[in-house]
Amino acid sequence: MKLYVWLTAPNPRRAQIFIAEKGIDIEIVEASDPDNPGQLSAAYCEKYPHRRVPLLELDDGAWIGEAAAICRYLETIYPDTPLMGRNPKEIAEVEMWDRLAEWEGLMAVSEVFRNTHKLFVGRGLAGYDREIPQIPELAERGHFRLGLFYEKIDEQLGANEYLAGDAFSFADITALCAIDFAISRRLPITESCSNVLDWHRRLSARPSTES
Amino acid sequence: MKLYVWLTAPNPRRAQIFIAEKGIDIEIVEASDPDNPGQLSAAYCEKYPHRRVPLLELDDGAWIGEAAAICRYLETIYPDTPLMGRNPKEIAEVEMWDRLAEWEGLMAVSEVFRNTHKLFVGRGLAGYDREIPQIPELAERGHFRLGLFYEKIDEQLGANEYLAGDAFSFADITALCAIDFAISRRLPITESCSNVLDWHRRLSARPSTES
Repeated sequence: MKLYVWLTAPNPRRAQIFIAEKGIDIEIVEASDPDNPGQLSAAYCEKYPHRRVPLLELDDGAWIGEAAAICRYLETIYPDTPLMGRNPKEIAEVEMWDRLAEWEGLMAVSEVFRNTHKLFVGRGLAGYDREIPQIPELAERGHFRLGLFYEKIDEQLGANEYLAGDAFSFADITALCAIDFAISRRLPITESCSNVLDWHRRLSARPSTES
Repeated sequence: MKLYVWLTAPNPRRAQIFIAEKGIDIEIVEASDPDNPGQLSAAYCEKYPHRRVPLLELDDGAWIGEAAAICRYLETIYPDTPLMGRNPKEIAEVEMWDRLAEWEGLMAVSEVFRNTHKLFVGRGLAGYDREIPQIPELAERGHFRLGLFYEKIDEQLGANEYLAGDAFSFADITALCAIDFAISRRLPITESCSNVLDWHRRLSARPSTES
């Protein structure tokens, strides 16, 4: 298997942390174009028409896209060290919190990034080969939503050690990748969200999350 | 168990079709406020702070939100008639296509709906109790994306009977709910997308999809 990534992007990082936590050995391939900053290479876009990273290429040549689908595949074939729940209820809770973290966290910071960064003028959304204009109001909305996301998970982490309960899971990985991406864009964790700050310190100490 | 829905909304419908295909008997509860069109009831919002539908309430009082997480729970406890894949690769492909259908289809039509409908002035995004202004450019972008989504799945359905391969799955359910929602908003399937039109006819003939 090979995992195609874009080294600075949060979605490939979700898969990379997942793989490191599982202790699996998978070849990592960079999919960006060294000559065109902020672009995926033409060869990669030809291979994967949905034009996003990460992508898992299986040994039979089949490919699986979307970070969560890749991690689900790895969870199914490498069930040791479960990261997507240990029983039906936990499996559902991890998926629920992963989707909340993706929808309210990762999407919010991506809205800020894609709609303000000069490298992405005309490419306001990942995965499209047509012009997608940047929308300044969407960047503003993303900023506002990110603040609410910090508050929401602060409450959840006040009552639970991890996002989906008492076990570290894929939902934590998604939230961490969203938040580290936000921090890199100068959108730090709200200072009053002490539970998030504590959780972030604990997660950042895990060897899998070293960048 | 009880499933809370909002009868005209596409996300609860994903869970309802899933339940009908599985042949499970679950009590359905309407979560909208009969006195305030376009609003969830206050009692529901108090029960479920993420303020979205559907919501599955378990017999022990625990709840699971997010349509995909609810369906994953039901798939795990009722494994007969699998709708999320029959082996690790198929499980991943169903999740990949479900997420593409949600991201590029359902989100696109929701962007049009929420950013233009007069009932949702100041509530441009589901799940928030703060003012979220409508963004006209986002409605426009959603409209544009929806056209590309029809083209994308037309290609996929030209080579496959169903979205994730040769078996009807949750990915088809998500795409159908997105598309029927679009049709109800006068955003019909592009006429040249004959594979989508044929697939839509086949799916609409399934008893589970009757609205």
